Amino acid sequence: MEKIATDRYFDYYQYNYATDDPRLGYYFLISDGEATLVYSESGVTEAFNDQYAYFHYFQYPFINPIDVHTVPSWVHEAIFYQIFVERFYNGDPGNDPGSVSPWGELPKPKSFFGGDLQGILEKLDYLKELGINGLYLTPIFESPSNHKYDTTDYRKVDPAFGDKDLLCKLIKQAHENGIRVILDGVFNHSGYFFAPFQDVLKNGGHSQYAGWFHFTEFPEHGGEPKYRCFGTSPNMPKLNTSNPQLKKYLFDTVAYWMEETGIDGWRLDVSDEIDHQFWRDFRQLVKGINPEAVIIGENWHNSYPWLMGDQFDGVMNYPVTKSCIQFFASGEISAEEFAEDLSGSLMWNSDQANFSMLNLLDSHDTMRFLTWCRGDKKKLMLAILFLFSYIGVPCTYYGTEIGMEGNGDPDSRRTFDWDENRWDKDLLAFYQQIISFRKSCKPLQYGNIKMWADDGVFYLERGYGDEKALTVLNNTGEGKNIVLPVGKAIDWVSAEKTELAESGFLHPFGGFSFYYSI
Amino acid sequence: MEKIATDRYFDYYQYNYATDDPRLGYYFLISDGEATLVYSESGVTEAFNDQYAYFHYFQYPFINPIDVHTVPSWVHEAIFYQIFVERFYNGDPGNDPGSVSPWGELPKPKSFFGGDLQGILEKLDYLKELGINGLYLTPIFESPSNHKYDTTDYRKVDPAFGDKDLLCKLIKQAHENGIRVILDGVFNHSGYFFAPFQDVLKNGGHSQYAGWFHFTEFPEHGGEPKYRCFGTSPNMPKLNTSNPQLKKYLFDTVAYWMEETGIDGWRLDVSDEIDHQFWRDFRQLVKGINPEAVIIGENWHNSYPWLMGDQFDGVMNYPVTKSCIQFFASGEISAEEFAEDLSGSLMWNSDQANFSMLNLLDSHDTMRFLTWCRGDKKKLMLAILFLFSYIGVPCTYYGTEIGMEGNGDPDSRRTFDWDENRWDKDLLAFYQQIISFRKSCKPLQYGNIKMWADDGVFYLERGYGDEKALTVLNNTGEGKNIVLPVGKAIDWVSAEKTELAESGFLHPFGGFSFYYSI
Repeated sequence: MEKIATDRYFDYYQYNYATDDPRLGYYFLISDGEATLVYSESGVTEAFNDQYAYFHYFQYPFINPIDVHTVPSWVHEAIFYQIFVERFYNGDPGNDPGSVSPWGELPKPKSFFGGDLQGILEKLDYLKELGINGLYLTPIFESPSNHKYDTTDYRKVDPAFGDKDLLCKLIKQAHENGIRVILDGVFNHSGYFFAPFQDVLKNGGHSQYAGWFHFTEFPEHGGEPKYRCFGTSPNMPKLNTSNPQLKKYLFDTVAYWMEETGIDGWRLDVSDEIDHQFWRDFRQLVKGINPEAVIIGENWHNSYPWLMGDQFDGVMNYPVTKSCIQFFASGEISAEEFAEDLSGSLMWNSDQANFSMLNLLDSHDTMRFLTWCRGDKKKLMLAILFLFSYIGVPCTYYGTEIGMEGNGDPDSRRTFDWDENRWDKDLLAFYQQIISFRKSCKPLQYGNIKMWADDGVFYLERGYGDEKALTVLNNTGEGKNIVLPVGKAIDWVSAEKTELAESGFLHPFGGFSFYYSI
Repeated sequence: MEKIATDRYFDYYQYNYATDDPRLGYYFLISDGEATLVYSESGVTEAFNDQYAYFHYFQYPFINPIDVHTVPSWVHEAIFYQIFVERFYNGDPGNDPGSVSPWGELPKPKSFFGGDLQGILEKLDYLKELGINGLYLTPIFESPSNHKYDTTDYRKVDPAFGDKDLLCKLIKQAHENGIRVILDGVFNHSGYFFAPFQDVLKNGGHSQYAGWFHFTEFPEHGGEPKYRCFGTSPNMPKLNTSNPQLKKYLFDTVAYWMEETGIDGWRLDVSDEIDHQFWRDFRQLVKGINPEAVIIGENWHNSYPWLMGDQFDGVMNYPVTKSCIQFFASGEISAEEFAEDLSGSLMWNSDQANFSMLNLLDSHDTMRFLTWCRGDKKKLMLAILFLFSYIGVPCTYYGTEIGMEGNGDPDSRRTFDWDENRWDKDLLAFYQQIISFRKSCKPLQYGNIKMWADDGVFYLERGYGDEKALTVLNNTGEGKNIVLPVGKAIDWVSAEKTELAESGFLHPFGGFSFYYSI
C-alpha cells in the first residue's frame, strides 16, 4: 500500500484494486518485516481467525452501480468564476431599480448599483479572455434586496436583472463561448414577500400555505405569528422542505428553469440546514433532467453526509478557504500544518467528491482574500498558484483577478471597476497564464494529489500516469534552497523544454508550478 | 462530559443536551485542571480563533425531524424468537411435501420434515408461556427448498406451509396473544423457478424480464446464459433491484403482504448486497403503510451506512454474536476485551439503532451456541444472561431454550423435539425467568448501558433514571470476589427486597442480574 496522506494525527494508506467482481471481502496484514499483525473488523489482532472469517473481514458486500457517486466528467476541466450580479456590470440602465448609487461608490448594506444579466452578457468576451469556462451567478430571481437571497417569486427573473428571455440568451451565448452556467438555488428560506408567506400572515394557521414554513406560534388575537427564519433574519422565513406541497412547488421550479434555460447545474444556498430527504429527491430530479448537471452545496464544514453519492456532487470548499487564510494570509499555520490540514480534509470524501469541490479563496460571504493578506499581493499570488494546483474546481470571486479588495459584507460586494487603468495588470496576466496552464495540464485536471512540506516550503504534486505537475510555494520571508525531481520538463510559462536542476533556490514568497513527464 | 465507553483504542465521552433550537454550533475544551486545549474542526489547538469561528466549530446545522431516525417504540419491550418454519412443528401432515423424513432424524441439506404454519399456530401457547412477544419466521413463500430462500412465487404462501388465510389466522392469533410477527423478505435474489427468470431462460435478452436480473452473457447459439447469483448458488439468481419494473413488483408485493396480513415488519435477507436506493424507498413504503412496522436487515458487519435513519431500524447483530462466541464459548478474549469490543460496536450507531438491533447468539446460518460451547451449559447460561441484559432486542433461535445443539447448516436446523422428557427443564425455567425479569425491568428495556471488567469479571450496567440493573458474569473456572453497589435492591428471582452487600463472591462460571433503585 502507498502512503497517500498525512494529517496532524494519522497517516493514510491506499491501494487501488480493480475487479470485475462487485463483491470484495478483505483484511490487512501489517508487517514491520519481522512481526505481522492483522487488522480486521475485530481490530488489530495477532492472527485472523478463519473459523469465523465471515464475521470479521471488511467488505464491499456488492457494489451496486446505482450507489456509486457519479459526477459530471466536465468538472475536471472546469474553471469557475463567481459573479455577484448586482455589482458586476450595469449593461442596461433602463431596468435599474428606483435609485442607484454611482458605480464605484463603496456599498452599504442596502445599496443598489444596477448590475444585471445584460452586463454579464456584454462582458462575456472579457470572461472568455480571462479563460474561465464556468459561471456561478448569485440569485437572479425576484427579490427586494441587492443580494436576492430573499426570494419573492421563484418563477420570475428579477426585473432589475432582466427577464427569462435575456437569461436564455445569456446562457446560450455563454455555452457558445464554452462557458457553463450554474444558478443559485435558495430553497432553505423564502423572502418575506413570497406570496405563500404573505398568505399565512393574512390568514394565519388556516392558510393552505401554513405548512410551507416553520411557524411556532399564531397569536390568538391577531398580530404577527412567530416563525423560524434563516439565522436571525425575519425577512427570510425558513421553508419547511419536508412539506410535500412545498417540495412539489420547488421541484417544479427547479425543473422549469432547467428545461427552459439549459443551465448546467445548481449552487445550493444554506444547503446544510435543509433535510437530507429533500436533497436525495432533488438529485434524482436534477440528474433525471440532465445527468451532466452539477450539484454544489453551500456547506462550510466536513460534508461527508451530503457527499456519499445520493445528494451533492461537491460543496463550496470553505475548509480549504480557512486553511488558505491561516497559511497564506495570517501565517498562523506552518507549511507542514497546511499540508496536513488539507490532506486530512481530502480523506473525508471520495475522489469523485474531491474532484467536484468548488475551491475558493473568498466569496460574497467572506472578506476578500487580498484583504485577509492586508494587501500583500505576493501572498495572494501564492494562494492563487495553490488554488489552481489543487484537486477540484477552482472558483474565482469576481474582481480578484484585477486586485479588488474588501472587508466582509457589504464591503466584499463592491462594484467591478471597469476602468482598465486602475487594474493590476500584472495580476490579471498572472491569472490568465495560470488558467491557461491549468487547462493544458492533465495532471492538474485529472491527477491524484500528494502534499508535503520541507524546510518550511510547501510542495503539491499531481500525478496522472506518466505526467506530473509540481507546485512549490515558499510562503516565508527567507529565500529557500529546494530539491526538485530531475529530468526533462516543460516550463509552463515559456513552453520550452528545459533541463530541471536537482536543486534550486526559491525567493522569499516565491513559488512556481511546472509540468513534466517521467 | 461523562465517559460512557472504552474500546481497545479509544475512550468515548458523551454529553446529553436538550434544546428547542434545532441549530447548534459547538467545540470542546479539554482540560487537565491546569492547561486547556480546544478541539474543533481544526483539530486540537491551543485556542479557538473567534475571527473565523464559523469556519471551524462543529455543528448541527439544523435538525430536521424528517432526518431523525425514528424507530417503533415497542422495540424496547420486544423479545423475539426465530422459527425455521420447516423444523418447528408439523401441525398439518396433510400438506407435507412429497416424502418427509421422520421428525427427529438429523437433517441433510435437502431433507423435508413437514413443519408448517399450522404447527406454529398450535404451539402459540408454548411460546406465550415461554414469554416471548415477537416472532421472526424464515421465508414462507413458495419455493422448492426446505429453507425457502429461493422464491418461486412471492405472492403465494408455500402450499407445504399453508395458505394466505392460515397466515392471516396465525398473525391474528399471535396478535391476540401479544406476539408480533415479522416475515423474511428475500429481495436480493429469487429462486431459479421464479417465472420471470424462467422467461429470460426461454426468451433470452429479448425477455421483458431480462433487466430484472444481472445477466452478463447470452450465448449466441442458445444454451444457458451467464448471470450473477447469491454467493455461488445458481439456484438463486441475483435480482437487479435498481430496475424500476422489478422494484415496483417487489414493492407491490411488500405492500400486499402488509395490507393483507397485518405483519409487524420485515427481516431482510442479504440486505447489504442490495442497493441503498432500494432500501431508502423501501423504508418510505413500509413506514407509510405502518409507521410501527420494524425493519431489520441481515448485515453481518458494521452497518452504519444502513442505520442513519433512512434505511433500516436495526440489523441482526452478528458482531455481538461474534464477541459472545469469543468470550463465552471459545474463551479467546478476556472479559476486558469483551467489554471493549461491545462498547466499540455500540459507538458505531445511534441509540435508536442500538435499541433496534436484533441481538442473537445463533441462527439458521451459524452453529448453535451450545455447540460452540461444546455442550457446556454453564457457558450458554452466562451468554443468555448477557443477551437479555444487553441493549437491543434479544432473539432466541428456536430450541435454544430446551438445550438443542447442532453444527452449521444443515445441522443447526434440526427438528424441535416436542417430547418434554428430553427437554432441559432447568434451562427452560431459567429462560422463562430471565424473560420475565427483562419484561418487568425498565432499565433493561429503556436504559443506557455501561460495561467494564474487573479481575476477569464482566459487569454490565443499565441505567434508567433512578432505576438500575446490574449483570455480573464470571466466565472463568475460578471463584471471584466481586464489588457491588450498596443499597436496597430487589432480588429478581424471589422479588424480595434485600439489602445488597458491599461485596460478594461469585462461583466459577457464576453470574447474576439484579434490579435496584438508587
